[in-house]
Parts: sequence; structure tokens; C-alpha cells
Amino acid sequence: MKVLRTEKRIWWGDLDPLGIVFYPRYYEWMDAHSHLFFHELGLPLGDLLRRRGIIFGLVETSCRYLAPGHYLDRVRLETTLTQLRSKTLVLHHRMVRIPEEVTLVEGNEHRICLKVRDDASLQAVEIPGDLHRILSDAAV
Amino acid sequence: MKVLRTEKRIWWGDLDPLGIVFYPRYYEWMDAHSHLFFHELGLPLGDLLRRRGIIFGLVETSCRYLAPGHYLDRVRLETTLTQLRSKTLVLHHRMVRIPEEVTLVEGNEHRICLKVRDDASLQAVEIPGDLHRILSDAAV
Amino acid sequence: MKVLRTEKRIWWGDLDPLGIVFYPRYYEWMDAHSHLFFHELGLPLGDLLRRRGIIFGLVETSCRYLAPGHYLDRVRLETTLTQLRSKTLVLHHRMVRIPEEVTLVEGNEHRICLKVRDDASLQAVEIPGDLHRILSDAAV
Amino acid sequence: MKVLRTEKRIWWGDLDPLGIVFYPRYYEWMDAHSHLFFHELGLPLGDLLRRRGIIFGLVETSCRYLAPGHYLDRVRLETTLTQLRSKTLVLHHRMVRIPEEVTLVEGNEHRICLKVRDDASLQAVEIPGDLHRILSDAAV
Repeated sequence: MKVLRTEKRIWWGDLDPLGIVFYPRYYEWMDAHSHLFFHELGLPLGDLLRRRGIIFGLVETSCRYLAPGHYLDRVRLETTLTQLRSKTLVLHHRMVRIPEEVTLVEGNEHRICLKVRDDASLQAVEIPGDLHRILSDAAV
Repeated sequence: MKVLRTEKRIWWGDLDPLGIVFYPRYYEWMDAHSHLFFHELGLPLGDLLRRRGIIFGLVETSCRYLAPGHYLDRVRLETTLTQLRSKTLVLHHRMVRIPEEVTLVEGNEHRICLKVRDDASLQAVEIPGDLHRILSDAAV
Repeated sequence: MKVLRTEKRIWWGDLDPLGIVFYPRYYEWMDAHSHLFFHELGLPLGDLLRRRGIIFGLVETSCRYLAPGHYLDRVRLETTLTQLRSKTLVLHHRMVRIPEEVTLVEGNEHRICLKVRDDASLQAVEIPGDLHRILSDAAV
Repeated sequence: MKVLRTEKRIWWGDLDPLGIVFYPRYYEWMDAHSHLFFHELGLPLGDLLRRRGIIFGLVETSCRYLAPGHYLDRVRLETTLTQLRSKTLVLHHRMVRIPEEVTLVEGNEHRICLKVRDDASLQAVEIPGDLHRILSDAAV
């Protein structure tokens, strides 16, 4: 099981005119963390596309907002792989204000394994065995 | 019933290194459209905060990705108010590639009426009657 | 001579907590317009890289801020090619609030023609003749 | 003299379709660092506006690009106050890839002290004495 943890600070440009975090920023951080999660498993998504024509494309994303983030808050991002099926997986993300350990946001990314065909169209396929084994070891 | 429709084009900076739309951009467009929806009802969210201490804060957001967006695609954004309760509402957003009428993304924002108290904390409250009437007329 | 003109509106997410445009947004719009300028000349920058290993890389960018942009302002973006040398060029961008014709921002992008070598390093080269002719016709 | 230094990593969403940093991101980081610089001097810009009606508005910004940033590069941001006059100041920013100490980008923000008048218009004014003293101590 792998838990990816990094820390960041909320910056001025992350805020909207009401002085609270502009919520698409949370998705930027989730997306960045998903890429880093795959990277740290030895499966960088850019390489998977170039070498094997495989993308873990998005099916659905969502976030719940539990407490507001403020300027200069320190935030720990935590990512785990909470579901792994033959073609799909779910990455779960938490953003926690530290040191108080207050959860600001929880989100999920549902991704599906897609093969890029010669005509550039995308086809849902089973996650190749070697990747599935690595992901299975990393799953919660 | 109100349907807000605007059009935009997918620009270079909306793409990620895989050449597809960086998905937090879709949430940026949804958020912008929500603000515009309230604005066009005569309820600009910045004014509601300043004059009445009221925010329609986010409870949850989500998107489903149905077809990929590409560079220079023309996209119609459509927003409707699909649910209105005493304290909460749901804005539904669609992004459609035109002129082919292919839905790229569908998303929802669940928002709750919050009162900013003197100590800056937030309390869920019923949507004030005058606002509720305007929203009720706008709902699907 | 080519003048690229498009229009956009200032949206909620373009504002910072002071209620004025978060200035990196102006650079996003400039960058988007540069790509569109090349695209409309039949020289899409992504294709130039893939087919010929050529990038018009950035040397320097700058903006002067003449008047503040506000929420829902309508803005016309205007881009021209104001300098063309053997290896370099300058794209000039103006953002004008309409219909008042008030210039909000003027900016420049200095770009240089770079060849991607086999080891992925970049080398400044003369702009190839066929591209230089097209750009020369487009220049102010 | 104050030198503000923080570190960050280049993330997936910071890249454009060519796989290099989307340059408006550098300005986002510069802007964030300017706010943090003022904050650490005890002069948070949001407070200056609310309490004293003063903004350090932008006159001009610029960046020179010396070396490309890549995915997952570690970057040190460094900010100094390189010029202080009666009404204006210049913040200088460097972004350095570490541990190699390769400068990726150097940039400047020229800011001017503005008073918000009752009609919401802005007037250039001398930097108030108490602020000027703090800034003078912080300058290079």
C-alpha cells in the first residue's frame, strides 16, 4: 500500500475575490498528485502514452468541501488508490490543514485504462498485467 | 426558468502535456458560469457577501467526462438550476462542442446558503425569502 | 500584415482577492493569442515541433498595466508581429476594454527560433526561409 | 536587507502541450512571492488596502527565460527589493533549479503606491513614511 504525502502552502493567487480558495485550485493539486502517485510507482503517465499508447483517462472527478482554506495555510496532500478493477481505478485525495489536522477537502478521481488506436480514437481496455500488479501492491 | 449559455474556444494554455484539456479548466469555466448565472438574476455573489453577509458556499462539485476536448474546439457552456431547497441548491453545467452538439463534460455544483457571523465563522441558514423567490423562478 | 483580434470577458476566476485581474491571466491570454496568431498563418506551433523540430521559444516577456480590468469587462485582444529578424521575432499584444476603447494592458513576447537537437538540447537557428516569408508578409 | 526564499516543485499542470513550463505559471509564482515578501515584512497587502486604502499596484512586469524548466524540477524562488523610490519600488525574482543552481527565470515587478479615493479611482501617492522605513530596511 502506498500513501503519497506532500505539503504546500496556500498562496495569494489561489484565492478568489471573496478571499477563499478558488476551488478549481483543489483539482489542480489533485491532478498534480495523481501524476506524482503514478510517477513514484515507476509508471509516469507521459511515458505510458509514448511507449505503450496507454492513458488512464478520467471518467469522473468530485470534491467535498469540509472547511475553508485561508491565505498561507499549510496543507498536507494525501493520495491513496482506493479501488482497482480490471479496467478502472479510483484515486482518493485528502487535503488537510496542518498542524491542526483539519480536513479541508476530500476528492476522488475515477480513471479508466484507454488504448490510443491508430486513428487516434480511444478504446477502454483491461489494465495490462504488469501495470495491474504494481497498482495492486499500491492499493489500500 | 433560466438557461445561461455562453460560448468559448479551447486555447493552448487549456491543454496539458498530453494535448488534452487540463481538467481543472472545466471547473474554472463552471465556477465562472455560476457567478454569471447569479449575476444575471440580479444576485451578484460579491454584493450578497458585502451587503448581506451571505455566501452560497460549495458543498460538493463533480464532473463526468464524456468526450475529449481539443485545441480550438468551440464549446457552448450551459447552466441551469436543477434543484432548490430551503438551504441548498444545485447548478448543473454542460459543455458541448459545437456545431456537432457533442457533450464533452457534465458537472454539478452543490451549494449551501451560509451566513458570515461576527467572528467570521460560517453558519448554514435558510435562503432568504426574496432570494428564494428569484431562484425559484429561475429553476428548471 | 496580419492583425489577430478576438474578444473575451473578464470572469470571476480571473480576479484576485482585491477584486482586480490577477495579472498572470493577462499573460495566459497573450500566450493563447500567440499560438492562435501562428495557427492562423498556417504555422501551428505544435506541428512545427513534431514535423520539423522547431520551437519559437521565449526569450523575454513583459506587460505594462495602463488601466485596471474589472469583473465582466469586455476586452478585445489584438496581436501583431512588430519585429522580425533572422532568428528572432516580437509579438505585440494589446488588451482594450470595449466599447470604451480603453487600453488595459500592452505586452510583448520576444521569441527565438530554436532547433531541438537529438540529445533534446536546444540551439538557436535562423528562421527557415519558407517560414520567414510567411512571417514577413504578416509583419507590421 | 531581506531575501525571501522558498522552494517548490514543477508539477504536471504547470506544463504546456510541448512539455515545458507554461510561462504564465512563472508570473503566478512571482506574484505569490511578492505578496509573501510584503507579508513577512509585516505589511500584508490585503490589510494595507482594507485599513489604509493603499495598494502597491503594478506598473510593469517582465521575465527573461534563461533555461527551460522540466517536470518535477526542484526550484528555489528568491525575491529581493532592488529599487525603492518615493512612490515606486521594484521587486526582483529569480527561479533557480536546485541543486544544480541553474537560473531558469529572472523577473521584475515595478509597483507604484496608489491611494484608493472615495470614488474608487486610484491616485499615485508617496509611500507613507512608516512603510517606506520598513521597505528601506528590506531593500538590497
